[in-house]
Amino acid sequence: MAITVVGSVAFDTIETPAGRRERCLGGAATYFALAASYFTEVQVIAVVGEDFGPRQESVFKARGIDLRGLERARGKSFFWAGNYLENLNEAKTETTELNVFGDFSPKIPEAYLGTEFLFLANIDPVLQKRVRDAMPQARMVCGDTMNYWINDHRDNLLKVLPGLDVLLINDTEARLISGETNALLAARGVLALGPKAVVVKHGEYGATAYFGEGSFGSKDVPRPFRSPALPLDLVVDPTGAGDSFAGGFFGYIASQKEVTPAVVRRAMFYGGVMGSFAVEKFGTERLQGLSRAEIDARFEVFRELTHLD
Amino acid sequence: MAITVVGSVAFDTIETPAGRRERCLGGAATYFALAASYFTEVQVIAVVGEDFGPRQESVFKARGIDLRGLERARGKSFFWAGNYLENLNEAKTETTELNVFGDFSPKIPEAYLGTEFLFLANIDPVLQKRVRDAMPQARMVCGDTMNYWINDHRDNLLKVLPGLDVLLINDTEARLISGETNALLAARGVLALGPKAVVVKHGEYGATAYFGEGSFGSKDVPRPFRSPALPLDLVVDPTGAGDSFAGGFFGYIASQKEVTPAVVRRAMFYGGVMGSFAVEKFGTERLQGLSRAEIDARFEVFRELTHLD
Repeated sequence: MAITVVGSVAFDTIETPAGRRERCLGGAATYFALAASYFTEVQVIAVVGEDFGPRQESVFKARGIDLRGLERARGKSFFWAGNYLENLNEAKTETTELNVFGDFSPKIPEAYLGTEFLFLANIDPVLQKRVRDAMPQARMVCGDTMNYWINDHRDNLLKVLPGLDVLLINDTEARLISGETNALLAARGVLALGPKAVVVKHGEYGATAYFGEGSFGSKDVPRPFRSPALPLDLVVDPTGAGDSFAGGFFGYIASQKEVTPAVVRRAMFYGGVMGSFAVEKFGTERLQGLSRAEIDARFEVFRELTHLD
Repeated sequence: MAITVVGSVAFDTIETPAGRRERCLGGAATYFALAASYFTEVQVIAVVGEDFGPRQESVFKARGIDLRGLERARGKSFFWAGNYLENLNEAKTETTELNVFGDFSPKIPEAYLGTEFLFLANIDPVLQKRVRDAMPQARMVCGDTMNYWINDHRDNLLKVLPGLDVLLINDTEARLISGETNALLAARGVLALGPKAVVVKHGEYGATAYFGEGSFGSKDVPRPFRSPALPLDLVVDPTGAGDSFAGGFFGYIASQKEVTPAVVRRAMFYGGVMGSFAVEKFGTERLQGLSRAEIDARFEVFRELTHLD
């Protein structure tokens, strides 16, 4: 089943110990859509400026991604510049130019209105809520957020959380949302705010899913589940790893008939797999040229990395 | 088969957010021995002072631990005081009094000389080497170390590493030993110094085992293996978690007929299990009163936490 994603499509200038790239295609919705496109159809709601041309468009088209919800506005696309020279686990932002993204008001094509799977990438929670409310038929909704919205737009974010089946965040964000330093208490604190499940990402250590009572058809509280990240000898560019995780995670779920705890566990692995590919090259390069066979082969590597037998 | 452990038996004064305890029984050899005692016989080589009395001795005796190698010296036992008030993942040392441990010269009882499994806990690498050389019949040797020996006694440490089947260290130590910041390159750098395998502990994120070529009877390089740590809602006292991991890990290995990569993977889980018990109460309290059934039940929790099916 198709997924609709709402979020940013952007240009990124990125510097890492492996080199520097100017104005790569980037943005949360881009990474998410590319990663999810290996599992299911993806429909994008975003806004770009006049600098978004046929070259950028072809990256989406080559993966069969539906851009009918991509608005073209006068001006420039969202631009971000940052580096990972001191720390591969945390970007140091040099420039953020919102440009046309600053006035983003998501427009949902009629053709998307039947979509059953909705991903709310990291944007203003007011917009997340508006899109969610405009797509009441969506039977599974996942979302992301970041410290800026948690700290400065908390009330708006708190209106989004009860509508989410899965919130995907990192350790720091889980602590910020809940006010708890202990990882398990932080996860429980987040669940108490409404999402049915929370996936907490640990960077190079993988991710942990925590579930609320009765989530995904279980009779009780499914046990937490931890998926690994792949030890890589070279992380070229960490940009988009989290959005690629989300794309693999939700893409796999949307490709399944039913959403059970077992499906969510496998989705966690596919999330890690897509994140591990994303960081192997700059920008979206690695995510553009994969095959499902490569993805499934790496899934087996993840299994061997964690399974006793 | 029995394990001989050489290391510290000490008194610890510990403060954590959960409270404060004065002069608990502690020391690396103590935690290791208690954890390993649920899997196999354990023989201790250590030194204590006159403050080590029947109460402390009974902790070992109750677990059937062989103390013939425990030397009683004039003076006081090794004493450490520290707190985890700011950070549960890293102790802040307040006091270290080596006392009789400062002149520790391990004496190996004749009865231990046939031991096939030897654990060199975190002590001066000169002593680790001396014990290893004095026990040539040991067919599997694991060891620990710390930043002090890595930084200030590197040459001595480098003489120990080639004699180890498994070196157990944490992320920071792997980076210090290898000079590499990337986790996989750090592990490879450590392996290049001689140990057949290295287990890198990640605190609340578990641990990863990396193997050298042909280790444990495999024909090639066994793939890395990652074991989880259990998300706990209360970490009472992190002291001894790493030594308890080592005890569970090596204790399980020594209890098996053969040491294969599959046995090492299960041993990683048992390491995590014993670490997770250790932190639930102050000092060695939790490790004193376990049962093998409780341990195996938690092993299954670890399996559910990580296994797809």
